[in-house]
Amino acid sequence: MRVLLPAGTTETALIDGISAAGAAPELMEHTPSADVEILEYGEPVASPVTPVSPNGCPTPAAVTRAVREVVDFDVSVIDAGLTQSTAAPTVDLGGEPGADIREAVAVPDANAAFDRAYDYGASLPDERLVIGETVPGGTTTALGVLTALGEPTGVSSSLPENPIERKRRVVDEALAASDLEPGDCEGEPLAAIEAVGDPVQPTVAGIAAGALESGTAVTLAGGTQMVAVAAALRHAGVDAPLSIATTSFVADEQGDRLADACDRFDCELTVTDPGFDGRDHVAMARYCAGEAKEGVGMGGALSLVPDGEMGAVRDRLETVCRRLGIDAEGEPSAESGEGTGDRTEGGHGS
Amino acid sequence: MRVLLPAGTTETALIDGISAAGAAPELMEHTPSADVEILEYGEPVASPVTPVSPNGCPTPAAVTRAVREVVDFDVSVIDAGLTQSTAAPTVDLGGEPGADIREAVAVPDANAAFDRAYDYGASLPDERLVIGETVPGGTTTALGVLTALGEPTGVSSSLPENPIERKRRVVDEALAASDLEPGDCEGEPLAAIEAVGDPVQPTVAGIAAGALESGTAVTLAGGTQMVAVAAALRHAGVDAPLSIATTSFVADEQGDRLADACDRFDCELTVTDPGFDGRDHVAMARYCAGEAKEGVGMGGALSLVPDGEMGAVRDRLETVCRRLGIDAEGEPSAESGEGTGDRTEGGHGS
Repeated sequence: MRVLLPAGTTETALIDGISAAGAAPELMEHTPSADVEILEYGEPVASPVTPVSPNGCPTPAAVTRAVREVVDFDVSVIDAGLTQSTAAPTVDLGGEPGADIREAVAVPDANAAFDRAYDYGASLPDERLVIGETVPGGTTTALGVLTALGEPTGVSSSLPENPIERKRRVVDEALAASDLEPGDCEGEPLAAIEAVGDPVQPTVAGIAAGALESGTAVTLAGGTQMVAVAAALRHAGVDAPLSIATTSFVADEQGDRLADACDRFDCELTVTDPGFDGRDHVAMARYCAGEAKEGVGMGGALSLVPDGEMGAVRDRLETVCRRLGIDAEGEPSAESGEGTGDRTEGGHGS
Repeated sequence: MRVLLPAGTTETALIDGISAAGAAPELMEHTPSADVEILEYGEPVASPVTPVSPNGCPTPAAVTRAVREVVDFDVSVIDAGLTQSTAAPTVDLGGEPGADIREAVAVPDANAAFDRAYDYGASLPDERLVIGETVPGGTTTALGVLTALGEPTGVSSSLPENPIERKRRVVDEALAASDLEPGDCEGEPLAAIEAVGDPVQPTVAGIAAGALESGTAVTLAGGTQMVAVAAALRHAGVDAPLSIATTSFVADEQGDRLADACDRFDCELTVTDPGFDGRDHVAMARYCAGEAKEGVGMGGALSLVPDGEMGAVRDRLETVCRRLGIDAEGEPSAESGEGTGDRTEGGHGS
């Protein structure tokens, strides 16, 4: 079993009001680079930013890392269009950052990215892959792809109040810029991604398709962004078994819509509740309030926690939070107080 | 604790009779890329070659991987000048492949590579780092650097019969091409590396220097190549405690010279014998015959094996060998018989 984490960026994340607003949206492009450092080393190493919201909500990378420190799984990070360098090791599949989906073309090399990812996925010897993502703005591009495919499914948000209407307007504008109507890309998922997606989508879809073709079991680790990938795979004619593993935070927000979407795309759904409501800790409280919810493979990682070990994960999350400058009350801890000015505000947002 | 593996290439490896000869020396530049795939995935994934000698001796990456499958340590691979792409995740520190040391300049960016590696090493939160290497031709460049520094220490070989005189002639030629006499670079290790070294050396040295400066314990995992790095560090004025962990195969070949060199550079020496002589298996027999000996962090990895677990490592090595197409008798196993034509011949050689 191996966890893969394609990490990339799209200028879509910079659209006002889409991803968590924050004082410094221009720092958001650092988020995936910081996320993968947290996953690899336990804290940001070269990244100039620490993805913690002003409320004290850490990136889901902190949770995935906490799980990893308890369960210990292999992780391989894929550079699927990072703009900022990272000190984490990455597999270079030649991905490029994505453009704002309101441009005519959002992912010029979607087909090539899919093909390279397919070959990579087919080459891996693992019996099972769990594939996550980190791409700020990714729920908006997910809505874009779902709409272009004619799949009327909603998407989640990293904000407690989902700006779904704002996202719909952006997607409408994006489709118009690509001269598309909803449903015009039915059966042509790479055309949908090229027009209104992000570069992480063809990477996740390609790895999954290649792995499935070679007999590897695939779990998509994420919420509505992975629903969009599953839709893309089904529209590409991939009919092998697929599963989606996400967090209770996404499931709670989406209600029946998530299970319905999984039914529609023939995906087994696993929802894991990390039990954050039992802890008096700001990071866990923010998740319970609906912030962040999912990302960086969090739901997939949580699904790997054996019975009885979730308390250890929560303990470990407190440790990881301390490294990120969050103490239980949400004030920056003493040893990293000077870092607060560098925090991306809601940089985990999608 | 984290194992770091800087991987790179030098055209020095292509000099006839230096590294293991083999039918296809031009395939040797694939070796480090294949090595790091073996380390990450357990077998080559995208690499067109499998580093196994014609005698059935696998790259030391197979041993390091076998240890990892028993002990399970974190590994981060550094691209320190690979020429061939790899499907393994790598940290990009901007390294470039090295030139033949018989050119005037072998590592043009030695200073910049050291500085980048220093910053990376200083940034890591681990309490202890074990730093290995994979660079074919690396014992010849080690001899080059030691000679330029005026340190009259011999070097090991991946061949049972060490072509040390041939290496000395190459180093003499290399020094002449750089207008240097032995000892001319005393106290200027980066000048020595720039003239007659390889790009992995400033990367290992830089990471070690940065890590030591930030209070991290450092073990150099290798034989005489790491003696050269230790010499470089001492000549750079780094006086923090250093240790070297290598295999009994290097120690047996070097006799007292290895311990003497470690004394000279104030390095604690750990030698681990994997007990390969007790097994009737071609790969282990080849190591006992003096082939390969060390590399890809093998000695450092072996030093991590707890008492009583070395048998499990040997068992696991047999499994890894099967994946590489080596069965106990050294014939390619049935399922990968067609791969034999792709083997690098002695590609693990240095």
